[in-house]
Amino acid sequence: MSVLLEVLKANEAYAASFGDKAKLALPPARRFAILTCMDARLDPAKYAGLSEGDAHVIRNAGGRASDDAIRSLVISYKLLGTKEWFVIHHSDCGMQLFDDEIMSGLLEKSLEGATIDETGWHDHGHGPGSVHGRYIKWHTFKDLAASVVEDVKRIRSHPLVPANIPIYGYYYDVKSGRLVEVPEATAVGRATA
Amino acid sequence: MSVLLEVLKANEAYAASFGDKAKLALPPARRFAILTCMDARLDPAKYAGLSEGDAHVIRNAGGRASDDAIRSLVISYKLLGTKEWFVIHHSDCGMQLFDDEIMSGLLEKSLEGATIDETGWHDHGHGPGSVHGRYIKWHTFKDLAASVVEDVKRIRSHPLVPANIPIYGYYYDVKSGRLVEVPEATAVGRATA
Repeated sequence: MSVLLEVLKANEAYAASFGDKAKLALPPARRFAILTCMDARLDPAKYAGLSEGDAHVIRNAGGRASDDAIRSLVISYKLLGTKEWFVIHHSDCGMQLFDDEIMSGLLEKSLEGATIDETGWHDHGHGPGSVHGRYIKWHTFKDLAASVVEDVKRIRSHPLVPANIPIYGYYYDVKSGRLVEVPEATAVGRATA
Repeated sequence: MSVLLEVLKANEAYAASFGDKAKLALPPARRFAILTCMDARLDPAKYAGLSEGDAHVIRNAGGRASDDAIRSLVISYKLLGTKEWFVIHHSDCGMQLFDDEIMSGLLEKSLEGATIDETGWHDHGHGPGSVHGRYIKWHTFKDLAASVVEDVKRIRSHPLVPANIPIYGYYYDVKSGRLVEVPEATAVGRATA
């Protein structure tokens, strides 16, 4: 069976026993958000005990505090009332195994309309607000705990992020399923108002 | 009990019955990726039938094809071998209920180091590669199906995205749990090689 058919079949079963979930409200009931990695081995609902309706979950390659992740967190707080945020990276992350140079090598043969120069990879496209025409930052990292600290710092110091939101820094151990605190990150992320 | 303690307690229970999941490989076993919304009511693993290890899940406010989502999809394909992608927005989305003007109004009283001018919101910070110093696009939308088409188009036409990846466009109905196809999006997303 194709992936598409498998997904639609699984969805049919889910919808068939949907029950009370139709009544869930838009704002997260438990008023928190998790920023974590897209990695297939991570299921944030399972590793953090979430039911549908509980919390926002933001995911990208690495669980990085990219501009877009910060956009999502600001919306999460400002429009939908979350009061606490988690940044959760994980061991054995692809963003740690690879670096920007490897990405460049892998992309070299498959690029259309893109060039490389002394400042890195660029592509040429559709103007402002798009990745086109700008340098692409892949957000790779070398040290797992340091990457969590860096991201909590970036969020904490962002002018759109209020001082009264605590940000907890953790990583997920893919060999045990455990969340491990990064105390330096949590210290940086402490609410100051 | 605090949210932090609840999460750690739930995680302890999850890790206690972790079993064979320690052996999962880094690349997604079922070789696909889903881009969807951070909305608390959505559990992509449940609505699409994913087990740990199966597929990449990328989430942001709206499930939008932002630069960062495209970064994640390119990594998903190029480093980790996914071959099919889903873009899945949903009904009753915050990004449809609000617009950039409402965001501006809500932020007006809470901004530090940010200004508004005729081109929109800006903040002033830490130089290139950061959201600081640039206009912030909130990625709100008016029409649900049109937003799926727009995002599939943006991904399809991106120079880093290979032509041989099919992109399926769907939305999730929060009242029924069902995935509903957006045929125009899936048509745009068809693989051409």
